[in-house]
Amino acid sequence: MRMNKNKVPKSVLERLPIYLHYLKTLSADECKTISSANIARGLGLGEVQVRKDLALVCGTGKPKIGYSYQNLVDHLEDALGCKMKINVVIVGAGKLGKAFLSYDCFTEYGFDIMAAFDIDEERTGELSNGKKIFTIDKLKEFCQNENVKIGIITVPEGSAQSACDLLVNCGVKAIWNFSPTRLVHTSDVKVKNENMASSLAVLSAELRVK
Amino acid sequence: MRMNKNKVPKSVLERLPIYLHYLKTLSADECKTISSANIARGLGLGEVQVRKDLALVCGTGKPKIGYSYQNLVDHLEDALGCKMKINVVIVGAGKLGKAFLSYDCFTEYGFDIMAAFDIDEERTGELSNGKKIFTIDKLKEFCQNENVKIGIITVPEGSAQSACDLLVNCGVKAIWNFSPTRLVHTSDVKVKNENMASSLAVLSAELRVK
Repeated sequence: MRMNKNKVPKSVLERLPIYLHYLKTLSADECKTISSANIARGLGLGEVQVRKDLALVCGTGKPKIGYSYQNLVDHLEDALGCKMKINVVIVGAGKLGKAFLSYDCFTEYGFDIMAAFDIDEERTGELSNGKKIFTIDKLKEFCQNENVKIGIITVPEGSAQSACDLLVNCGVKAIWNFSPTRLVHTSDVKVKNENMASSLAVLSAELRVK
Repeated sequence: MRMNKNKVPKSVLERLPIYLHYLKTLSADECKTISSANIARGLGLGEVQVRKDLALVCGTGKPKIGYSYQNLVDHLEDALGCKMKINVVIVGAGKLGKAFLSYDCFTEYGFDIMAAFDIDEERTGELSNGKKIFTIDKLKEFCQNENVKIGIITVPEGSAQSACDLLVNCGVKAIWNFSPTRLVHTSDVKVKNENMASSLAVLSAELRVK
């Protein structure tokens, strides 16, 4: 049974990978049923929040028993689209781009970070995990052949807009932007800007308030 | 004049680095005054949101003129504590750890990512920007000598809790955790968990809804 994605707010969606990952770390004998209270405790989250979040993707658990482990995992994977493989490329094979290319935690959520592309020929080659870095002129053919849906931008600030334009021209539908540039794009392309300094700023403000 | 940090909600605080960075990219002749409408347009954000956010840190601008550029920059820098240097270390000098060590965008917000530490002696050495990687046994002395306040954890999942315990033992007050492990810690330490897959999951869910 496929749930209606429109019903899950973005703030809840962001927590689903955390629940799913937590469930997958549990050992086999903990695994037949699990209550939202136990998940909340395990993750250090509020029980009310966990119960509400899980109700949106998997209905309510049985009183005093909770959820069937497997049923909950299935619903979370369904809500996150883990079984629908989504192909992803990286533009910019500097340190951050290479870090993503070698990061294997995206796979469990259905993402295949396939390759990286860079303007600098010296960066091309193969990582130890077998993932390849190509020159940027190979991007369009690759995206079309592999039906790439998401592009990650990890180029320096001044090159981000042209990387964005290029990815859109290659048919990519969503962009995850790690440069501090605000990208100009048409409304049919989704862009998520990731400002790493924002996270640190929030942490340090909390330190200073104390 | 120092504003009251308690007044700025976390959601607004997260946007302040974006405003500040945008202002700093403007050329000198655009720079005497700037309106919230222009900032909103430049960043592709809603004007009402920008006006409300800036009002919290810098009061309201002058009608039809907006803010004095320098005054707005000063207030944003003050709210973000950019002039108070905060020392930061990284535990885990794999690809992501090294990417942070060479990322220079944190400096403008007052963060000095000083060094990285790793259990693997083969990873020690110096990056091209002069930042150093030490073995983990040097962590405590370094943190105490340099008054390090924030630790970034970029170790594999199984080592994250011990990295956290070690950082807390070294006197660090806040942790930015990039491993998918939920860390157990005392309440006097702030932890911000960064789940990279969550961002991608939201993007891809938006793609699938369309």
